[in-house]
Amino acid sequence: MKVVTFGEIMLRLKTPENLRIMQSDGFEASYGGAEANVAVSLAMYEDQCAFVSKVPNNPVGMSALSEVRHYGVNTEYMLRGGDRLGIYFFEKGSDIRSTNVVYDRAFSAFSLSQPSEYHWENILEPGDVFYFSGVTPAVSKYVEDTVRSALKYCKENDIQVICDLNYRGKMWSKEQAQVVMRDLMQYVDVCIANDEDFEATLGIHAFDGNLSTGIDQIDTYKEGMLEITRQFPNVKSVTSVLRNMHTVEEGDWMGIYYVDGKFYQSPIHRVHSLEAVGAGDAYGAAFVHGLINGFEPQKTVDFAISASVLKLMIQHDFNVVTQEDVFKIMNSKNTNLSR
Amino acid sequence: MKVVTFGEIMLRLKTPENLRIMQSDGFEASYGGAEANVAVSLAMYEDQCAFVSKVPNNPVGMSALSEVRHYGVNTEYMLRGGDRLGIYFFEKGSDIRSTNVVYDRAFSAFSLSQPSEYHWENILEPGDVFYFSGVTPAVSKYVEDTVRSALKYCKENDIQVICDLNYRGKMWSKEQAQVVMRDLMQYVDVCIANDEDFEATLGIHAFDGNLSTGIDQIDTYKEGMLEITRQFPNVKSVTSVLRNMHTVEEGDWMGIYYVDGKFYQSPIHRVHSLEAVGAGDAYGAAFVHGLINGFEPQKTVDFAISASVLKLMIQHDFNVVTQEDVFKIMNSKNTNLSR
Amino acid sequence: MKVVTFGEIMLRLKTPENLRIMQSDGFEASYGGAEANVAVSLAMYEDQCAFVSKVPNNPVGMSALSEVRHYGVNTEYMLRGGDRLGIYFFEKGSDIRSTNVVYDRAFSAFSLSQPSEYHWENILEPGDVFYFSGVTPAVSKYVEDTVRSALKYCKENDIQVICDLNYRGKMWSKEQAQVVMRDLMQYVDVCIANDEDFEATLGIHAFDGNLSTGIDQIDTYKEGMLEITRQFPNVKSVTSVLRNMHTVEEGDWMGIYYVDGKFYQSPIHRVHSLEAVGAGDAYGAAFVHGLINGFEPQKTVDFAISASVLKLMIQHDFNVVTQEDVFKIMNSKNTNLSR
Amino acid sequence: MKVVTFGEIMLRLKTPENLRIMQSDGFEASYGGAEANVAVSLAMYEDQCAFVSKVPNNPVGMSALSEVRHYGVNTEYMLRGGDRLGIYFFEKGSDIRSTNVVYDRAFSAFSLSQPSEYHWENILEPGDVFYFSGVTPAVSKYVEDTVRSALKYCKENDIQVICDLNYRGKMWSKEQAQVVMRDLMQYVDVCIANDEDFEATLGIHAFDGNLSTGIDQIDTYKEGMLEITRQFPNVKSVTSVLRNMHTVEEGDWMGIYYVDGKFYQSPIHRVHSLEAVGAGDAYGAAFVHGLINGFEPQKTVDFAISASVLKLMIQHDFNVVTQEDVFKIMNSKNTNLSR
Amino acid sequence: MKVVTFGEIMLRLKTPENLRIMQSDGFEASYGGAEANVAVSLAMYEDQCAFVSKVPNNPVGMSALSEVRHYGVNTEYMLRGGDRLGIYFFEKGSDIRSTNVVYDRAFSAFSLSQPSEYHWENILEPGDVFYFSGVTPAVSKYVEDTVRSALKYCKENDIQVICDLNYRGKMWSKEQAQVVMRDLMQYVDVCIANDEDFEATLGIHAFDGNLSTGIDQIDTYKEGMLEITRQFPNVKSVTSVLRNMHTVEEGDWMGIYYVDGKFYQSPIHRVHSLEAVGAGDAYGAAFVHGLINGFEPQKTVDFAISASVLKLMIQHDFNVVTQEDVFKIMNSKNTNLSR
Amino acid sequence: MKVVTFGEIMLRLKTPENLRIMQSDGFEASYGGAEANVAVSLAMYEDQCAFVSKVPNNPVGMSALSEVRHYGVNTEYMLRGGDRLGIYFFEKGSDIRSTNVVYDRAFSAFSLSQPSEYHWENILEPGDVFYFSGVTPAVSKYVEDTVRSALKYCKENDIQVICDLNYRGKMWSKEQAQVVMRDLMQYVDVCIANDEDFEATLGIHAFDGNLSTGIDQIDTYKEGMLEITRQFPNVKSVTSVLRNMHTVEEGDWMGIYYVDGKFYQSPIHRVHSLEAVGAGDAYGAAFVHGLINGFEPQKTVDFAISASVLKLMIQHDFNVVTQEDVFKIMNSKNTNLSR
Repeated sequence: MKVVTFGEIMLRLKTPENLRIMQSDGFEASYGGAEANVAVSLAMYEDQCAFVSKVPNNPVGMSALSEVRHYGVNTEYMLRGGDRLGIYFFEKGSDIRSTNVVYDRAFSAFSLSQPSEYHWENILEPGDVFYFSGVTPAVSKYVEDTVRSALKYCKENDIQVICDLNYRGKMWSKEQAQVVMRDLMQYVDVCIANDEDFEATLGIHAFDGNLSTGIDQIDTYKEGMLEITRQFPNVKSVTSVLRNMHTVEEGDWMGIYYVDGKFYQSPIHRVHSLEAVGAGDAYGAAFVHGLINGFEPQKTVDFAISASVLKLMIQHDFNVVTQEDVFKIMNSKNTNLSR
Repeated sequence: MKVVTFGEIMLRLKTPENLRIMQSDGFEASYGGAEANVAVSLAMYEDQCAFVSKVPNNPVGMSALSEVRHYGVNTEYMLRGGDRLGIYFFEKGSDIRSTNVVYDRAFSAFSLSQPSEYHWENILEPGDVFYFSGVTPAVSKYVEDTVRSALKYCKENDIQVICDLNYRGKMWSKEQAQVVMRDLMQYVDVCIANDEDFEATLGIHAFDGNLSTGIDQIDTYKEGMLEITRQFPNVKSVTSVLRNMHTVEEGDWMGIYYVDGKFYQSPIHRVHSLEAVGAGDAYGAAFVHGLINGFEPQKTVDFAISASVLKLMIQHDFNVVTQEDVFKIMNSKNTNLSR
Repeated sequence: MKVVTFGEIMLRLKTPENLRIMQSDGFEASYGGAEANVAVSLAMYEDQCAFVSKVPNNPVGMSALSEVRHYGVNTEYMLRGGDRLGIYFFEKGSDIRSTNVVYDRAFSAFSLSQPSEYHWENILEPGDVFYFSGVTPAVSKYVEDTVRSALKYCKENDIQVICDLNYRGKMWSKEQAQVVMRDLMQYVDVCIANDEDFEATLGIHAFDGNLSTGIDQIDTYKEGMLEITRQFPNVKSVTSVLRNMHTVEEGDWMGIYYVDGKFYQSPIHRVHSLEAVGAGDAYGAAFVHGLINGFEPQKTVDFAISASVLKLMIQHDFNVVTQEDVFKIMNSKNTNLSR
Repeated sequence: MKVVTFGEIMLRLKTPENLRIMQSDGFEASYGGAEANVAVSLAMYEDQCAFVSKVPNNPVGMSALSEVRHYGVNTEYMLRGGDRLGIYFFEKGSDIRSTNVVYDRAFSAFSLSQPSEYHWENILEPGDVFYFSGVTPAVSKYVEDTVRSALKYCKENDIQVICDLNYRGKMWSKEQAQVVMRDLMQYVDVCIANDEDFEATLGIHAFDGNLSTGIDQIDTYKEGMLEITRQFPNVKSVTSVLRNMHTVEEGDWMGIYYVDGKFYQSPIHRVHSLEAVGAGDAYGAAFVHGLINGFEPQKTVDFAISASVLKLMIQHDFNVVTQEDVFKIMNSKNTNLSR
Repeated sequence: MKVVTFGEIMLRLKTPENLRIMQSDGFEASYGGAEANVAVSLAMYEDQCAFVSKVPNNPVGMSALSEVRHYGVNTEYMLRGGDRLGIYFFEKGSDIRSTNVVYDRAFSAFSLSQPSEYHWENILEPGDVFYFSGVTPAVSKYVEDTVRSALKYCKENDIQVICDLNYRGKMWSKEQAQVVMRDLMQYVDVCIANDEDFEATLGIHAFDGNLSTGIDQIDTYKEGMLEITRQFPNVKSVTSVLRNMHTVEEGDWMGIYYVDGKFYQSPIHRVHSLEAVGAGDAYGAAFVHGLINGFEPQKTVDFAISASVLKLMIQHDFNVVTQEDVFKIMNSKNTNLSR
Repeated sequence: MKVVTFGEIMLRLKTPENLRIMQSDGFEASYGGAEANVAVSLAMYEDQCAFVSKVPNNPVGMSALSEVRHYGVNTEYMLRGGDRLGIYFFEKGSDIRSTNVVYDRAFSAFSLSQPSEYHWENILEPGDVFYFSGVTPAVSKYVEDTVRSALKYCKENDIQVICDLNYRGKMWSKEQAQVVMRDLMQYVDVCIANDEDFEATLGIHAFDGNLSTGIDQIDTYKEGMLEITRQFPNVKSVTSVLRNMHTVEEGDWMGIYYVDGKFYQSPIHRVHSLEAVGAGDAYGAAFVHGLINGFEPQKTVDFAISASVLKLMIQHDFNVVTQEDVFKIMNSKNTNLSR
């Protein structure tokens, strides 16, 4: 059994330390994207995992592929071709200065890849798990169609589908997102829904609009989670990360997991992050790890939130931590932790 | 209409991260100085702005000039000649370890430049704004005389004069400073006075000597500001930054602006700084930006303090932020903010 | 009088030292492009110079603009807008390993800029010089049209036009290039033609196809230069760089200048280059510098080839050298020099 | 009079910033080890100091020796020979992510050095001070024997012995440590005992096992200190550092010093550390500095804890600070300080 | 069909540029070893390839494994365990200053790995190719025995054996090498023998001892190659690299291949190397690539020497080039090339 | 017996690679100066050696002192005080682009140090060797007087004086140099005279003015050496380095040594340098090493020139090589070597 993730991987160009782009004469180069991040996490946990995407057959594209392979992800199903790899420029903020991302991802090889290029029957086997996030169908109409055909194949072949709604306002409007994602939701077995995702992606009201006080609004979040299972009965479980954020780095983090009619809540972790990128993907990957390894629900949500806050201490997109590393956080008696 | 700033620009040699000079085999090189910093800020806000100074006509001097030009400052009035550019070595502190600066600025081209080298009649036009800080006359007797001749030219030609008192104990004694600055104050229209400046530069008592508890002493500060306008009736407005500092990085910051017989206070920002250099210059520049763009007093002081605390999150001397960046801080609902 | 150059500026991402992209976790970032390079050279020689282009109004685009301004180029006519700045990845070769460039310049803000966005009547004045290279019309049909409208404006307003044919096989075919460039040539006063340019851009045969032995074929080159003046009588002078190349770094370089019915040849410089990018632009800029400063033809070609080989010792795209630096090369008694 | 420290010095390979080893393509190289750290601190305070150890006579070993000499330590008694220098890899943690050290120190030149190679009669003179930590005898049986022979020499020659118990669980078990250290303790005049050292090294119970709440357990610590003097009457004084730790960086630190039947306590410093390595050695060295310079007990413990928390702000193993730097901390009115 | 290589991989710590270890405060970290280098080359050529070795299950060992996987090598048969990864320090020379390597590879996990840990029946299949170099049996008696058992398994299972004799004087004496290698040679089908290998490893005289004039002694080399096939009739073909070296960087390189009773010689490449490490492994890998892809003998030796000299232009141990990159060298009309 | 060198040590700020200062945002920091370089070389050869100078008692000055101590030089006689350490900025050239040095050394602590600050009676003992170069008296009149008083002390106390004439045109004119140096020469026992030194420093004609063809003019050089011994009969021996230079890096180097009425010539080394700074000091130090260790004249000059060309392969000012490293060069059969 293996987990297959499908999405875009980009070149990330980050200025050193917290320099602004206008101040810097160099960039740290790494590679990432929601589903690539999830795949690497799973490989680090020693789960079988393949990443499906398309990268150009030039040194930049091959570097993206190689970085994923570096951490043990199976890359044999990745397509090679097209013209360019998407890029994002990254200026790390600090305290009151917010992090700044400049996207340069239009016209990427992945966004122009066609549904017919992906042979799901060769990639997926019964018993596998298929993972995608809401970023993927937002990339282009072509990719949206590819997702739909993959999901149909999953439904027909006993392949569990996990979706992290993952709304990105820079990529599409709420209206566009809802049309697409509500349609795709009918194939989803497990739903990861955070922050804005409820309203932006599904039109379900879950909080008052202030992302900085998510934990304070836990009850409305829970109601939103229940509403997902009502509107999409195929969704067997829902999980969310809730946050109270104080500065760019300071925040409280917790996870909730609704399954079999019951809510499981993790402790609240107060942390000072080193880098905020990829915490959601780290949560999703760790959650999947719990699922496929038969963790109890409470352990699953505890493990997932521990992996997520640990990612805040890891540079670059990938959560380069082992299962043992996560257990150490999960079992620590950190005084900044409360339940 | 343009703002003309006049002062020294230096090469700043900072060790990487927080290394001590004795540990480091390299320096990050940047350029800065109070009035150059102000000029760059204004250029970043897209105000017309020229920087007047003197740099040696060698690669080090031309780099200083180029760095200012890089951000859009007009450098056509800068003199080229003399022997050396002033230098300061910079060891960044952390928490209880204070930042350490080693000055190596004596005998710089600027300090030896003569009043006759500056042709104010070619540089300044009626309606312009002239900006200098107390650092400039402290550089040398030559430069002090140049400042005086510039101020006289301003008085005669309808050019507004803004002075940031900016006392530097490493450059001159209080006694020396008071003799010079009290004389120059008679030409000043707008005065920026912080911390030690009241007493050291003007001999006006404004706080109990503990710089770490400025905000707690707000009333005595206000009294000092009023006293400035009493002793120097030509000063139409005064503005100050008040701070409560907890560690090298942690502090509370607020601005006060006295104009037309009324005090305007900004909210208090609690911030954890990335780099402390240039926050005062960032305040002064943003304050000037408000003045010349007709901001209301409350908006002016709010904008200025927002720019100042945002500078704490920007590396090197220059506040490389746009007006929009500052507005984002000013309008944020940051939970560390109180009024 | 000023020189106006028009073309694209890109972000250049170079791996450190000679690392392959697949080996590197960072890039040195600089900015360049044929006409930006020419503009910076002229500014370094203290000639009046403006660069016209379009960059996105984001930190990446503003960095490109700022880097040109850094060296003293007038950037007030640059347009700000559009989505992305073109990029090229750069792997520096060594000896037998050729340098590798990966273009990622499609869909740039410049390539999509419209002729109507450029107001040549505000930019150009009688007596100015207009400089472009064959790269510019190759960027897109829009840009080609913009070039044509600029050239027409020049013809009507006594503005000299200098064109570096600069054929780039990765951007268009010979057939496409010839259709466009032969049309534009009717507006050109001075033509810079190197290597492949004769045949690829104008369909004029000038060498046997082996770029490594250009100097050995000097006579056929001369014939090609004459042929240009025959086919385009408006072209008053032609200049070319000839090279014998031995490895990626080792080569012999010389310049020829045909004007007023006479050929002027520079000495041959044998050099071992540090970086090959921008040597042609350095030649063009130095040649223009000679023209507008009234150098004698022999001095012009000697200066131009000296600037060109000196660029081979300067990293990044821009030829950051002064007129004095070039004179030192020109007047040296280097033993690797022969006439 | 001089202080002689004896122990191992290793090459420390730290990833840049907080990168994981698997993410990094380089290491910062520095050198350190408990007794080398103490020696460097003393040299920085301008005390006479020699470091005794053995390093291989290759560039790696000579670098270790040179780094110590760099700061003014006398290295004339260091042996050169053997095969390898011990190494430790260092991944700096952050907040909830703990710092990770990978030891690669087995079979080092020092660990294989024989007692007969050290000629204590040439190194030590009456009136000197001999300093070692519990790390040294843990290195190997050979080194343990060397320590014992040095201590015997000290006893016979009026040389004061100071021992920092310094238990390292990765090097030996508690059982092994107690057998060796309880034997060596009979030669010790002054004992530095922290955290685990009481129980692990001496079998004396001093706290409840939770290292994060040392200050809260000050009374049991004091009892442990008294117990040391009871069991080892030759020990004339004992000193300890107590800590309450909140995250990897945040903690409260204090020192206690028992001498002449009386306890002296430092104020409590709340600090956010930049790097945690070597704080204990910094304490030990500063404590020794106080002893040999005749500081009063209260001043000694205040100085020692100030040096220790200042080390938390200094990168690498060595506490590169002067006596004056420590006095500044000691005399500051830092608001995070309580007594 | 796949190629399986077996040997040690080490951490390589190189000072930046050409710094001496005593001058440097950091190391570039990469990973390499003869058989790992061969495996990566083959993966870059898109051949199926697995690397068999043992690395410690710590971040350093996992980085070694990941770097190999990065380039597409199958690492599923690598053992994880033991204490340390071998290290070598690398100071790059220049011109007359020779490169300096400090080995720190004793007691590595690989050297202590037992024959019983390797299950060749799970790793190797009939039709595969087994590749090892003379470095591997030199590592330890354990590893020598493992090699022997692997070779026996190959002989019994129709698996071709390729051996690069690769003598390393720092690892064993000629006498030791000859005893072991002459025994192992009876299992070898294809032999790669360079420079010292003839005499040191096999006791066959092939040159006058001056490694700097190998090409000048081509006839005695050929005689040595024939002698190998005479003494070891199982060896079906022999290939060698010959060099004339002028400085650390400058040299002439050629390959010879003896097969089916005939010698094939490559052209001579005169090159100026960027880094000398791994050129022999690059030759071996490219040679194997030719063999398993059915290249004609002349094309095989031309391809192999082209790959080898191209490696001289690639930093670190791995020859990160594609088949197409090598063909470009092979087909270039480089003027420094002679036949 | 020890060698005492006396002169200035400066902070050297070099741009990375070959960047121009205007292109760079950082500097590599190292420390050097003629006599410091000589001292470090001698310490690397394990000769007893002390460096006498004055550095400011700030972190920059202490770093200079520490770097010398790092390599084993005795620094106990160095004075601490004054305001600043001299600086030189260093842009490394390449091929035809010459290296560029920007001095910023005026008003250094050393240049303002007084003769009375140096207590030669505590520093020098009979049998010692005193070494200075012509740079030292050029620093200031104060320092010139200090040199003179030291030389007088040497004459009276049986201390051999070695002087490297070392003319620096940027520091004084030929006229000034000759007045001072011809006076000091009466105390000199051994004279090192290179290139321009003959004429500029002593007014003795030794070559035709073309520094690029020194070896071709060997006979006139020899005549100049003889003339020195004629004009200054106290000078017992003279040694010179002769060079034919082809590019910034390429050159032929040889040494000549005149002693006891006989000339000894080294072989000619053709080398491609990595860095040109300090080759003369490396020659001088190695020459002194030969003298004090009783090398035969031929061995002395061979050793000295080998050390000098090896320095060309070492970055920074100090020749970080051992005696064994030099012997390797001296005894190599390098094909670029001719006698």
